[in-house]
Amino acid sequence: MNSKIDLMKYVADKEDIDPESFIIADYVYSGRENWIKLGAKIAAEQSTGTWVEVAGERDIVERHGARVFDGDFNGRQGKLRIAFPVENLNPRDGIPMLLSTIAGNLFGMKVVEKIRLEDVHIPNSYMKAFNGPKYGIEGLRKIIGSEGRPHIGTIIKPDVGLPPDVFAEYCYEAAIGGVDFIKDDELLGDPAHSPRFERLNRVMEALDRVREETGRTVLYALNITTRMSKIVEVAEKAKEEGANCVMINAVTLGLSSIRAVSETVDIPIHVHRDMHAAFTRDKSHGISMLVLAKLIRLVGGDQLHTGAVGKMQGNVKEIQEINHFLRSEWYGLKTTMPVASGGIHPSLVPANLDAFGIDIVLQAGGGIMAHPMGIRAGARAMVQAMEASLKGISLREYAKNHEELKVALNTFG
Amino acid sequence: MNSKIDLMKYVADKEDIDPESFIIADYVYSGRENWIKLGAKIAAEQSTGTWVEVAGERDIVERHGARVFDGDFNGRQGKLRIAFPVENLNPRDGIPMLLSTIAGNLFGMKVVEKIRLEDVHIPNSYMKAFNGPKYGIEGLRKIIGSEGRPHIGTIIKPDVGLPPDVFAEYCYEAAIGGVDFIKDDELLGDPAHSPRFERLNRVMEALDRVREETGRTVLYALNITTRMSKIVEVAEKAKEEGANCVMINAVTLGLSSIRAVSETVDIPIHVHRDMHAAFTRDKSHGISMLVLAKLIRLVGGDQLHTGAVGKMQGNVKEIQEINHFLRSEWYGLKTTMPVASGGIHPSLVPANLDAFGIDIVLQAGGGIMAHPMGIRAGARAMVQAMEASLKGISLREYAKNHEELKVALNTFG
Repeated sequence: MNSKIDLMKYVADKEDIDPESFIIADYVYSGRENWIKLGAKIAAEQSTGTWVEVAGERDIVERHGARVFDGDFNGRQGKLRIAFPVENLNPRDGIPMLLSTIAGNLFGMKVVEKIRLEDVHIPNSYMKAFNGPKYGIEGLRKIIGSEGRPHIGTIIKPDVGLPPDVFAEYCYEAAIGGVDFIKDDELLGDPAHSPRFERLNRVMEALDRVREETGRTVLYALNITTRMSKIVEVAEKAKEEGANCVMINAVTLGLSSIRAVSETVDIPIHVHRDMHAAFTRDKSHGISMLVLAKLIRLVGGDQLHTGAVGKMQGNVKEIQEINHFLRSEWYGLKTTMPVASGGIHPSLVPANLDAFGIDIVLQAGGGIMAHPMGIRAGARAMVQAMEASLKGISLREYAKNHEELKVALNTFG
Repeated sequence: MNSKIDLMKYVADKEDIDPESFIIADYVYSGRENWIKLGAKIAAEQSTGTWVEVAGERDIVERHGARVFDGDFNGRQGKLRIAFPVENLNPRDGIPMLLSTIAGNLFGMKVVEKIRLEDVHIPNSYMKAFNGPKYGIEGLRKIIGSEGRPHIGTIIKPDVGLPPDVFAEYCYEAAIGGVDFIKDDELLGDPAHSPRFERLNRVMEALDRVREETGRTVLYALNITTRMSKIVEVAEKAKEEGANCVMINAVTLGLSSIRAVSETVDIPIHVHRDMHAAFTRDKSHGISMLVLAKLIRLVGGDQLHTGAVGKMQGNVKEIQEINHFLRSEWYGLKTTMPVASGGIHPSLVPANLDAFGIDIVLQAGGGIMAHPMGIRAGARAMVQAMEASLKGISLREYAKNHEELKVALNTFG
């Protein structure tokens, strides 16, 4: 393919790429072609070209053609960078058209064996159509009233199957025990045994009791994931019925769901990323979690699961890089609070804090819910583990005077 | 992980699985665990369990727990089948929650190296919330007035960069030349140089001229892919302004976009699948195209790209299996018309017809647009290649009396 087109039209020198006029995407790949030839084929396919030269192509490529402008190849693997003209896109079309451009057909091209979108650089001219998170780390800390410490979160378990009154009672126990944040499991939507809004009402009653008794505000992220035509309506209703946070499974629904909700409803958005590993896990094919994280911050995710030292696959260095991005200055957008989740229990708190710092939600589901002394004790044990870590005291030492932590360490290892 | 829970709760005998009460998902995997143990861990994670036994789990697992009930393992690779209780889901939440259940966190589990969702079986109790395609193959044939032959389609090239008047003129030429169907490229949304509705108006004027001159109706799939909050609005406006078909990049936007549009606007929906190969290409990890095709038919896709003998990666047997599904009886839903696209030109018509039959759209972009005698001749050459194939005449033979075909064969090989 492409033998019939002059590929050099789709190649540029680095110096000729004005970063304000292009969206720049970085790829790694496996295959037999050098980065210039392969990059030109991809740049053509993903902009003005196809497998054969067509009339008019030469006239518009100057303005609308993508360009490969940097790369490297060792005979089997390589990397390359492509600049896509911002002009080809309308930012109002948002993430779907951006993904079609930088992460569309190219994954299926026969000329490459594997290819992975590693990073994306978005110019201000495109960025300015997006608002980013409404709350961010600072906004969430203001609601919780926290400073100099992570937020402790929990996921109610069992994930599905609990009736709303029991579910709410579990929330009460976790909140009284000291968690800052409670969320539905990503599997819990609106099933007959736990209707979404009945659950919300019960949980918010329980958290109101907690506020009366302790003065503390605890966030509850109601899983509003539903089909596209209903997501804004469900988010609006959640807000009306007293929700103080919502959760969206943004990969299975579509990333622009976050923007749709954020533009309509004034509420923190907790973003779950389930299904991401279908295309992020292979380090040589698909899309990196960093790219996903950038797009999710762009469209307004206030919290995002990025991985933990725990049960899910993930590499600490990669998670650190993502978390660093989420908290860094980026065209003045608010930050996104990373969420560490998956198999966390008190013993893992020091390792997660060491690795990821305090601007994070440390979420323990089973690691709180399964505490032998009950949920309240489970929450206390997590809080105690956090206190010990922040004070630089070993958990074993701290456990001597903290029964809940001691039992947790003996139970969960 | 999971060493602390009784995994046998998540295992069942095949005979105990009532297919009406479960969504059944088939996986293949690579790893070190046998299918029963791995399957039980996945069934737990994706339903009522977590990495540790929690209070109340035992009581609800009977009703809400998923179950592994079949499988195979050779020491390195295996397959397994899991039954997910329909009760855990609300069909009104649609595809996003279904995907979170059968294709969510499991892709990132450390206990498995790779895992791929191969197939899904949806019971009537869940299906009945969905309407499927509004038109299907029969409905599309009725609009076009076709019988006993494939539809010939084209994608206007260059993909991006043409102003609406030139774009519309290309459409006119292709339509006069004989194509049944014209579509925007998946990269063309609503850029400043080709505003979506201006393009639509120009194209529909051109196609009205074609109808006046020839009596033929040609479909034009306007790419309405946009962000979630606008997709229904854009679809409605397209219909109001005279569109006779719309196209959605359903993977980058989210599959339930199809349902949202289908429920609101009475118009055929052409589904592009760009980005799918980020998770369908590796045959041992991710999600199969067959699963995607099933879900797209469920939510109402009238046409779907499934692959071709051409430039994109894809295996003929797999495409045949998918196309067979799209056309087969499935709970009384209408069919979805497969679209063969990607590097097609007249020489490839016989091979595509042999492989996929006549209930298909054969789409040539460059293979029409780049014809040396012009677009009209390019369209004629494709139609001639179709006629020859249907008559069982070799293209070389037919080309003797068909100039456009002869030139195409000499040009494209």
